[in-house]
Amino acid sequence: MRQKRILIDMDEVMADVIPKFTTIYEREMGKPLLKEDYYGKKIYDVEGAKHLRGFLSEKGFFADLPVMPNSREVIQELMGEYEVFIVTAAMEFKNSFVDKYEWLEKHFPFIHFRNIVFCGQKGMIKADYMIDDHVRNMEAFEGHGLLYTSFHNVYEKRYTRVNNWLEIREFFKIEGAL
Amino acid sequence: MRQKRILIDMDEVMADVIPKFTTIYEREMGKPLLKEDYYGKKIYDVEGAKHLRGFLSEKGFFADLPVMPNSREVIQELMGEYEVFIVTAAMEFKNSFVDKYEWLEKHFPFIHFRNIVFCGQKGMIKADYMIDDHVRNMEAFEGHGLLYTSFHNVYEKRYTRVNNWLEIREFFKIEGAL
Repeated sequence: MRQKRILIDMDEVMADVIPKFTTIYEREMGKPLLKEDYYGKKIYDVEGAKHLRGFLSEKGFFADLPVMPNSREVIQELMGEYEVFIVTAAMEFKNSFVDKYEWLEKHFPFIHFRNIVFCGQKGMIKADYMIDDHVRNMEAFEGHGLLYTSFHNVYEKRYTRVNNWLEIREFFKIEGAL
Repeated sequence: MRQKRILIDMDEVMADVIPKFTTIYEREMGKPLLKEDYYGKKIYDVEGAKHLRGFLSEKGFFADLPVMPNSREVIQELMGEYEVFIVTAAMEFKNSFVDKYEWLEKHFPFIHFRNIVFCGQKGMIKADYMIDDHVRNMEAFEGHGLLYTSFHNVYEKRYTRVNNWLEIREFFKIEGAL
């Protein structure tokens, strides 16, 4: 029997993008960003901040993002029982490729390059589970989607929600394989 | 009804790697490379040439490869009837990412970034057809594999063989959608 397969997203699931974007917002907009300003949205969807999305195209943006708490150990545990793929929609940002690859090498050296995918959409990948913060990826996915909580998805009700990596560990314990 | 999906490999299918490797072989080994020397193998599997595989890791290697004859127009035709993904096992060579992305932008500007995938294996992608020169990709694929002839696969008998892009066009005409 083949191992069940889990797809894991990078940004806002393994890597925390929010602190960097908060800093950029405050520097570029010259005013502090409050949580209530971006609750329910992306930071660059806050009024007047649309141009901040351009920072995603800058070399180095993804190079030094902090690792989400507990993601390292939980992913390593999951790899003992599941086939794990890191799947990131990097294709829109060619300057992110090497940053993302090296970030994974540095923080997740136990993940083989054969299990990394850079793409522009995810619906064509076969898997049993997907951990992702984007509703559009959940919608296109045929397996069981776990929606990783991020400010922009807090109002979404359709998917199994996970707020952190300890909850992901609990979910897979209940699924019976951890 | 969803469109049928075709996965298309880059190296030795859309991009011709052989002339560059022949040149490198002759320069590095100080002797000409004859077709009979590498018939049935990769050029870097010719005796004494193993280290030449290292050139795949060099920045620029994939930047200026020639486009396979007729691939542009046939892929554009296929895109009218099928969902086409360009899927390349780039993940082993991080210096290839931007080269490959820009090569596609330059020669195949009609392919959207959402339809490009850089990965390390292909068996987890759902599709109806795959055009690829590697037997290991055919073996892992559940749809109909079309083996694109390359020196290293000439002895393989198990798959539908296509020798060039005009034969690919003919195959899909017979399949009924071109």
